[in-house]
Amino acid sequence: MRARDLAVEYESVSVGSDALEAARLMAEHKLPGLLVLDEHGEPKAILPASQMVKVLVPEYVIEDPTLAAVVDEKHADRLCQYLVGRSVGDCLPSTPSPPPIADPDDTALEVAALMARVRSPLVAVAEKAKDGTHLLGVITAAHLLHELLAASGGYGGTTRP
Amino acid sequence: MRARDLAVEYESVSVGSDALEAARLMAEHKLPGLLVLDEHGEPKAILPASQMVKVLVPEYVIEDPTLAAVVDEKHADRLCQYLVGRSVGDCLPSTPSPPPIADPDDTALEVAALMARVRSPLVAVAEKAKDGTHLLGVITAAHLLHELLAASGGYGGTTRP
Repeated sequence: MRARDLAVEYESVSVGSDALEAARLMAEHKLPGLLVLDEHGEPKAILPASQMVKVLVPEYVIEDPTLAAVVDEKHADRLCQYLVGRSVGDCLPSTPSPPPIADPDDTALEVAALMARVRSPLVAVAEKAKDGTHLLGVITAAHLLHELLAASGGYGGTTRP
Repeated sequence: MRARDLAVEYESVSVGSDALEAARLMAEHKLPGLLVLDEHGEPKAILPASQMVKVLVPEYVIEDPTLAAVVDEKHADRLCQYLVGRSVGDCLPSTPSPPPIADPDDTALEVAALMARVRSPLVAVAEKAKDGTHLLGVITAAHLLHELLAASGGYGGTTRP
């Protein structure tokens, strides 16, 4: 089993995408995060839903927990305005860490080792070509776990195809 | 909207639960992580699926990426044996960080501030009582984002109930 066979489609947005649209996408599909691609379609960062929450909450409220309790509901009702006119790129941390990238020919164990080394919830699978990196898909930790368990009889052999 | 109204059930296991069962639970339901409760039912840690992958992969393979490529498939087929006879507690990092805990009466903004401050993908909602902490449920970042957007018209008012 190679990385190219394990890679699946994953919700992704571009750095230039509308931040509010991206937040809606995460919220509606209950996604723990989105894959962010740069202007060339190459994986640039993982944007966790918690980072999006952070963007919505005013800095002074994050720094002073007691303030959060006294901010009136009307103010809370205006939170989404913080996203209007902003791009996904604006919501990334100042030094976003790109997701680890596996080669399509990497084995499941190589992908697992990469994931374990960088403690990433997902690994992007991309092909390096002369004109840049082509994203084939993504392997999440849960999906990889599923494959590793299936391959090693972790389901007692009963659910292995 | 208070934390008690936002809290939902979340897949959780006990520190004493079987590690292989926990891995299967994550794999089958494609969960990014599990909430781990201590022997008193109190939130003890979040166990990310990537940590479970890390447990499956032998240390020497994680440390030397070139080894991962040459380990034969038969060896990879025995990976799940690393979980046999181990408990969920054995799979946690040596210093597991307990999830942030919100009070049932906290406002959505207080929960958001807490989540943003500790950059956690989820917040546990628990009631402190004389006999310990009672878990009411969990609020994930995506779920909270959904509530904040709905409350502040982030869906353009069309999907707001």
